[in-house]
Amino acid sequence: MEWFQKNDLTAAAAQTDVKGDRSLRPFQQKDPDLYVHVVEKRDDGVVVRGAKNHITMAAYADEIICLPTRMMIENDADYSVAFAVPADAEGVKLITHVTNPRPRTKFKTPVSEYGFADSFVIFDDLFVPNERVFMCGEPPPFAGLLAHMFALFHRHSYTGCKPAVTDMITGASALVADYQGIAGKTHVRSKLAHLVSVAELVYAAGIASAVTAQASSSGTFVPDTVYTNVGRRHAGVNIYHESEILADLVGGLPATLPYEGDFVSPDTRPYMEKYIMRKADVPAEKVHRCFRLISDMICSAAGGAAAVAGVHGGGSPVMEEILITATYDFEEKKKIAKYLAGIEE
Amino acid sequence: MEWFQKNDLTAAAAQTDVKGDRSLRPFQQKDPDLYVHVVEKRDDGVVVRGAKNHITMAAYADEIICLPTRMMIENDADYSVAFAVPADAEGVKLITHVTNPRPRTKFKTPVSEYGFADSFVIFDDLFVPNERVFMCGEPPPFAGLLAHMFALFHRHSYTGCKPAVTDMITGASALVADYQGIAGKTHVRSKLAHLVSVAELVYAAGIASAVTAQASSSGTFVPDTVYTNVGRRHAGVNIYHESEILADLVGGLPATLPYEGDFVSPDTRPYMEKYIMRKADVPAEKVHRCFRLISDMICSAAGGAAAVAGVHGGGSPVMEEILITATYDFEEKKKIAKYLAGIEE
Amino acid sequence: MEWFQKNDLTAAAAQTDVKGDRSLRPFQQKDPDLYVHVVEKRDDGVVVRGAKNHITMAAYADEIICLPTRMMIENDADYSVAFAVPADAEGVKLITHVTNPRPRTKFKTPVSEYGFADSFVIFDDLFVPNERVFMCGEPPPFAGLLAHMFALFHRHSYTGCKPAVTDMITGASALVADYQGIAGKTHVRSKLAHLVSVAELVYAAGIASAVTAQASSSGTFVPDTVYTNVGRRHAGVNIYHESEILADLVGGLPATLPYEGDFVSPDTRPYMEKYIMRKADVPAEKVHRCFRLISDMICSAAGGAAAVAGVHGGGSPVMEEILITATYDFEEKKKIAKYLAGIEE
Amino acid sequence: MEWFQKNDLTAAAAQTDVKGDRSLRPFQQKDPDLYVHVVEKRDDGVVVRGAKNHITMAAYADEIICLPTRMMIENDADYSVAFAVPADAEGVKLITHVTNPRPRTKFKTPVSEYGFADSFVIFDDLFVPNERVFMCGEPPPFAGLLAHMFALFHRHSYTGCKPAVTDMITGASALVADYQGIAGKTHVRSKLAHLVSVAELVYAAGIASAVTAQASSSGTFVPDTVYTNVGRRHAGVNIYHESEILADLVGGLPATLPYEGDFVSPDTRPYMEKYIMRKADVPAEKVHRCFRLISDMICSAAGGAAAVAGVHGGGSPVMEEILITATYDFEEKKKIAKYLAGIEE
Repeated sequence: MEWFQKNDLTAAAAQTDVKGDRSLRPFQQKDPDLYVHVVEKRDDGVVVRGAKNHITMAAYADEIICLPTRMMIENDADYSVAFAVPADAEGVKLITHVTNPRPRTKFKTPVSEYGFADSFVIFDDLFVPNERVFMCGEPPPFAGLLAHMFALFHRHSYTGCKPAVTDMITGASALVADYQGIAGKTHVRSKLAHLVSVAELVYAAGIASAVTAQASSSGTFVPDTVYTNVGRRHAGVNIYHESEILADLVGGLPATLPYEGDFVSPDTRPYMEKYIMRKADVPAEKVHRCFRLISDMICSAAGGAAAVAGVHGGGSPVMEEILITATYDFEEKKKIAKYLAGIEE
Repeated sequence: MEWFQKNDLTAAAAQTDVKGDRSLRPFQQKDPDLYVHVVEKRDDGVVVRGAKNHITMAAYADEIICLPTRMMIENDADYSVAFAVPADAEGVKLITHVTNPRPRTKFKTPVSEYGFADSFVIFDDLFVPNERVFMCGEPPPFAGLLAHMFALFHRHSYTGCKPAVTDMITGASALVADYQGIAGKTHVRSKLAHLVSVAELVYAAGIASAVTAQASSSGTFVPDTVYTNVGRRHAGVNIYHESEILADLVGGLPATLPYEGDFVSPDTRPYMEKYIMRKADVPAEKVHRCFRLISDMICSAAGGAAAVAGVHGGGSPVMEEILITATYDFEEKKKIAKYLAGIEE
Repeated sequence: MEWFQKNDLTAAAAQTDVKGDRSLRPFQQKDPDLYVHVVEKRDDGVVVRGAKNHITMAAYADEIICLPTRMMIENDADYSVAFAVPADAEGVKLITHVTNPRPRTKFKTPVSEYGFADSFVIFDDLFVPNERVFMCGEPPPFAGLLAHMFALFHRHSYTGCKPAVTDMITGASALVADYQGIAGKTHVRSKLAHLVSVAELVYAAGIASAVTAQASSSGTFVPDTVYTNVGRRHAGVNIYHESEILADLVGGLPATLPYEGDFVSPDTRPYMEKYIMRKADVPAEKVHRCFRLISDMICSAAGGAAAVAGVHGGGSPVMEEILITATYDFEEKKKIAKYLAGIEE
Repeated sequence: MEWFQKNDLTAAAAQTDVKGDRSLRPFQQKDPDLYVHVVEKRDDGVVVRGAKNHITMAAYADEIICLPTRMMIENDADYSVAFAVPADAEGVKLITHVTNPRPRTKFKTPVSEYGFADSFVIFDDLFVPNERVFMCGEPPPFAGLLAHMFALFHRHSYTGCKPAVTDMITGASALVADYQGIAGKTHVRSKLAHLVSVAELVYAAGIASAVTAQASSSGTFVPDTVYTNVGRRHAGVNIYHESEILADLVGGLPATLPYEGDFVSPDTRPYMEKYIMRKADVPAEKVHRCFRLISDMICSAAGGAAAVAGVHGGGSPVMEEILITATYDFEEKKKIAKYLAGIEE
């Protein structure tokens, strides 16, 4: 930690293994490399092989911190491995996909200049010296604890960042409703209220999780597992419906909007500026920019990727359900039911 | 307040007017008494007429505190009235409905002994002395402020009490899943996780609302409007689905369970004890009690009333949506959308 | 069939076993009687033991036709049994639960006079002569085929009868919206449209299933499995939401409506008739009757039982999902995906 | 009709006006051209001005048939206009947006070669001779009837074509579940069953609508309004959830899948082929093609446009709700409720 702070370093956490056949455990895969594992132990370190995918910002991080992706059992011992390496270490290969907003040539906006990058991070018989190995063959439940602890902090951060994604959807929805002259309609209000409810419930779960956090022995405060996971889950099970609400309010134009050039060319510009008009007091360019923004949000590769990230980033809703059911005190609730039923133990 | 504390009094808040034709404002109703209003002003007080309905615990409260049910406009001036009277004052009439759990004769439980009571509270030309009149003819927005302020505190309390209702449903769901031998199934876990998510998100909204509360000039802390309302709304839009989950997990027996006597009579008891069995290690009586509890929860008048209360008590989801859209800072969100779109004002 | 028609007989189909531990097959249960099975084979017939539950109208049927409740495997051979017996045969015991509408004493309606009855049907070492035994020990897949064939016809009939249940909810919803003065509101229209959509989609599935039915070798037409099951499932996954819509439109009064007597007693009647009023042109008694009907529908034991029956009667949604996924031609759909992906086999 | 058939012509129906401020009727718009209208009547024909948008295939049709987009009232008389013109007539201008699948350079598939085109169709003082004018100034309800009649046939065709869109989603979902080794899991089966239910309920509504169609005076059969509209609505309210199911089953790879070239380049191909593997018996290229297909389906501009079209094409769900509530026989249902309530008229 001190070394990171002193050198102003940035790290990417490489957690999600490629995982091969989902019905098999790590040690059961036909190709043992489908989860990252130790292939050789030397006096001065270990050699690891395997790949992590969906690793955001690996391409511009200083360090890559590799963590187990899940609970491991005894047979998975070689897969209980965690370490940090410089992102350009020998044996680290990145195959990177860049998601960019749809390019703008004439109606530029700040946001159209920035994308994000996700990588397959491949450890091709990477040597990791001992001082950079954090976990290596520890028995259960250590790999699972580390996996879940990273997920917990990641999901807690999600309760802060995800509402900001919803804020963009809410803002675009409210703006286009204004421009179209439907802002006061009952069904529009109800849909906006739903968007607000998603964002603020997720954020509220983050607050509750922070307020009830527990100090660990290291002094780090650990957010509450249940509040964090119900918050992240709520975001994940609503993201497609949020796009649906925006699509509902905007109408079909994001799918059929003419090209930027048609709003510039002297032959077509007069038509487009005349017929894109909605409320008489909103200039054509504003209306046009509003529809183009929404088209970029819901009818583009980047928009689709954002929705997928909304479901799976930081752990899919099904992962939160597993965590919730694994950690929740159901016995306490069953006691209530037994009391109500008159069942004595 | 001091007088209440010193005398250990209990009050019922009488807010919800009968409201007549929902498409008309108070002053527009053909019968002007369909909202509580002042019919005469005297030097020493006012005479009020009208009725409030759904007033829980009016039948055993010391005092009744009457509040406006909604925002009033200039024409509704006579309806902007708030006051407190002893519950047995001359001119106060109660017509009360009692909701009891389904009676048990042989398999008693603590919960089967207690019900609750709701009243039509009728003010039949009730005289209220001036010192007990809190509001009388104040112009907008005072009636609305008072209505919403009561609703806000009521809904905030709801974020604490409603999760307890869900706890009962969660406990019964988890217990019957155990007894039937399906507790570990994926779909069961997912449904239990949904119940937990509802309860804990609502409670988290209450925590967030409290943590971000603002001190008013009186020193009372006022919970955050948005968190409180998204929390209450989330409870309201989920209550029927919670019953549905419990019905799904329990199967059809709550609807067709033989009478208590059939589990006692020597002719039928051996059959019922034999065929009610689920997992071999759970005695018949426990299984029977579990199903009877759930039958009481979802196949009884009290159960139906609890679901209706879950939707409407403290304000229906549509009321929360109105509050959320009326108070939320949509301009801030629209600014985000404009920035993203490159729209300059 | 001819004998039934000639003697004008009525039969109850006894299919649903009590099933004990849901995680175990019939032959694995600790008590082997938790599914109906053959306990002795004689020259002239078989002796059966076990119990069926949820058997509607068993208490007033002439005959009981017993069918396997599920697919059986080799080890379940004794459980592959089907037969018919007179409902009052020696060895048949009924333990019956009657569900009645909430009784009315003063504001009677036709519907408040009729209930329905469901029984535990117990076969207590019942002897069934050979000529009444339809299946006895047949190997797979015969028990499963018979179980599914009954379910198919039952579910097809459901696509006709279930929309009638929704019709009642739609009618009550539309009526109370009228009386309250909210019939034309956008959100009301949208909710009514949802109710109509549920009823008419389920009915449409029944029509499609009938139109595409196949003649079997016996000459009986067999409804289409997929259309029948998607129709029944759609009813089952919507029933609680239908109650929710009705609760939403009616408000809280079904839970707090004063007793019938309060609308008759000279002391209270004037108040109730005054304050129950909604639109000025609808007489108080009509409004009262409307709310009382809806209270009987959603705040009564019979209403709760109807909702549970809506989920589980004729097979729960999860059973339809199993049938759909077991019989649907997914290979054909996967071929489409492969073609689109350029995957060649 | 005969002339179309003889000359083998293809027409695009231009119905959807740009509509300007949605809170105003056609005649109330500040710019009267925001709905197509007659600007001049001559002896031999009429001159029209305005624009239609979202007009699929206008760019390659022989003829354009212009229809009113909605019900018109007396003041909208100039907007009650319908006609047909050759698509390249003087005064017709097309500004066209083409939606193409994401281009493939190395892993081509048949589907990646075909897109679709939607146009703004601008009538810039277009002269239409009398013999091509079908409606011109007819009073209510004629414009509305024509608008709804076109919508009815369009929506009926939708009950056939929309299930094919779902088939693609179902096929891709089933295929990727197979490849990942999760095809038999309960939650996967349940999600596939939901996809099947959407497709088959919509198709069933189409069958029911056709079977109950009525012959019009022209001899054309007119599909049933209610079945058609509940079918189209069901498709529209499910399309985003279908994408969500596919996203859920496929995982995050559609958002982060490396470029085609990375599966070809000698430097990266071995890694990608090794780490894209799922079930051991499915070759890497098949897995890769499957993920790329799904990425094209849910993480591309064309995929986003397909979802928007799924909501709005042929009329949004809210339009179906308006039609359903406008044409459904609610009086009949209210009669049922009155009978049940004991309300006599």
